[in-house]
Amino acid sequence: MSHYEQVAIVGVGLIGGSIGLALKERGLARQVVGIGRRQESLDKALAVGAIDMASIDLEAGVDSAEVVVIASPVSTIAEFARRALAAAPQSAVVTDAGSTKAEISCVLSNSLDSASARFVGSHPLAGDHRTGPEFALANLFEDRTVVTTPLESSSPEAIAKVESFWQNLGARVVKMEAAEHDRALATTSHLPHMVASALASITPQEWLPLTAGGWQDTTRVAAADPELWTQIFAQNKSAVLEAIRQVTAELEKLTSNLEEEDWDKLQATLHNAKRIRDALGN
Amino acid sequence: MSHYEQVAIVGVGLIGGSIGLALKERGLARQVVGIGRRQESLDKALAVGAIDMASIDLEAGVDSAEVVVIASPVSTIAEFARRALAAAPQSAVVTDAGSTKAEISCVLSNSLDSASARFVGSHPLAGDHRTGPEFALANLFEDRTVVTTPLESSSPEAIAKVESFWQNLGARVVKMEAAEHDRALATTSHLPHMVASALASITPQEWLPLTAGGWQDTTRVAAADPELWTQIFAQNKSAVLEAIRQVTAELEKLTSNLEEEDWDKLQATLHNAKRIRDALGN
Repeated sequence: MSHYEQVAIVGVGLIGGSIGLALKERGLARQVVGIGRRQESLDKALAVGAIDMASIDLEAGVDSAEVVVIASPVSTIAEFARRALAAAPQSAVVTDAGSTKAEISCVLSNSLDSASARFVGSHPLAGDHRTGPEFALANLFEDRTVVTTPLESSSPEAIAKVESFWQNLGARVVKMEAAEHDRALATTSHLPHMVASALASITPQEWLPLTAGGWQDTTRVAAADPELWTQIFAQNKSAVLEAIRQVTAELEKLTSNLEEEDWDKLQATLHNAKRIRDALGN
Repeated sequence: MSHYEQVAIVGVGLIGGSIGLALKERGLARQVVGIGRRQESLDKALAVGAIDMASIDLEAGVDSAEVVVIASPVSTIAEFARRALAAAPQSAVVTDAGSTKAEISCVLSNSLDSASARFVGSHPLAGDHRTGPEFALANLFEDRTVVTTPLESSSPEAIAKVESFWQNLGARVVKMEAAEHDRALATTSHLPHMVASALASITPQEWLPLTAGGWQDTTRVAAADPELWTQIFAQNKSAVLEAIRQVTAELEKLTSNLEEEDWDKLQATLHNAKRIRDALGN
C-alpha cells in the first residue's frame, strides 16, 4: 500500500520532476498529479514518468491531493500556495520547494486565516544548474538536507506530515525560522551564485581555452537560469547585499595582504579557508 | 623503442607524478628519474610507478636526462632550472610546469647566458586541489592545454622539443608570451582561487550543513595547498590585484542593481555570465 493516495506537484521542473520520480520509484504515491502552465513541460514530465496525470488547472489538479508541493519559481509560490490551500481537501497539507522563505512566509501569514495551519514552507538543499523535468533524478533528495520553515500558525500535524514527506524521499529535515534560513542561505547559496556570475562576466571569451578545473568549478552555477535567480535575489535582497559586503571585505583584506606582500597573513587566510572547505569534504 | 632514453622530473607531486605515469604508460621513456627533497614523496612516486629511479641530488639526477621537467612549487623553479641546465647534458632541454611564467622567465633570462637557449617555460592547464604523487593520473594531460612560454633566447630546436614532449602526453600546445600568460591566468585561474577562499572564509562553520552544490563547486579550490598558492599569488601579484579589482567592480555593479531593484539589469548581467559559462560547456 502506498503512503499517499495522491500527491500534487505544482511546477514540474527539475525539482518538481525529481519529487515525482522519487515518489514513484519508492512506491510512496499511488498517483502523482503534475500541474503546470506549459503543456510542453507537463508532457516531458509524463514522458519521464515523473507524474501520472497532468493538469494546467491548479484548482482541479489539487482537489484530491493529500500533499501539495509548490515547486515553481519563488515569485509565484505564495500565490500558488494560497490557491492550493483553498482548493485542496481540508485534510491536505501544502508545502513548497523555494530557495527563499521569509517573504513567502510573510505573505502567507498575512493573507491566510485558518488555512495557514496547513502550510509549512520547505527548501530542499538539492538541485542543479540545469532546469526541466528531463534532468529530474529519483535520488535527488537522498541524504540531502531539507529545511522546513513552519509559519507561526502551522499546526503540529501539518509540520509532522511535511517532515515525514521529505524523510520518505530520503532527506534529513532541519527546522528553522524563515528569516534565519534566508540569512544563512544568502551566504551558503545565493552569494556563490552571485560570485560565480561575476567571475564568468569578467572573463574575456578568448581566454576560455586558458581555463581549467578551478575556473570551471568556481563558475559552474553561473549557468543556472537567470530568471529564477533574479527572483531569488529579489526575495532575499537585504541578506544577499550583506553577504556580498562580507565577501567584498574579505577580498579587500586579501588585496591588502598582496599589496603589502604580507605572505604570512595571506597564507593564514588561505589556511583558514581550506580548514572550512575541508570540514565539508568532497 | 622509446621516444626518450631518460626523462628527469624535479618535484614528484601530483603534476610531476602524473608526467611520470603518462611517460611510462605511453611507453615514451625508457627511464624516468624522480628528483625531490623528501625521500617520502620519492618513495610514494616509486610505489605508484610514476618513476623508475629516485634521487635527492638534483645534479646527479639530471646528468643523463634528455628532457628535464621542473614540477616543483613556483618559487623554486627558476633556481632548479638554472641548476638543471648546468648539470644536464648539453643536448638536454629543460622545461617546467609552473602556474606563473613571467617572473621565472625574467630571472632565467637575466641569469643565464647560452644555457637559456635550452630552456622553454611550460604551464599544463591541468591539476587538482589535492597534492602528492598518490593522486597522480596517467591521463592528466590528455586533451588538456599546455601553454609554452619560450624565452627570447630559447632555440627553435628546444621549443620544438618541449612542444612535442607535451603533445606526446596527449596535450595540445599553445605558445604565449610569459607576461600575457600571467595576465590571462590571473583571471582564469588565480582569481577563482582567491574568490573561492574568500567565500569559504566568510562562511560560519555551523552553516556548512546548509550548503549544497553551489557552495561546494564554487569553493572547491579553496582546499588547495595554501603554501603553493601563496607563492603563485606572490609571483603574479600585479595581475592578480587587477583581476580582484575587476571582480570587485562587477560585484559592486550587481550590488547597485540589487539596491535599486533594477531586475532587468541584474538579469541581463546573469544572462551574460551564463552565455560565457555555457560557451565553455561542462
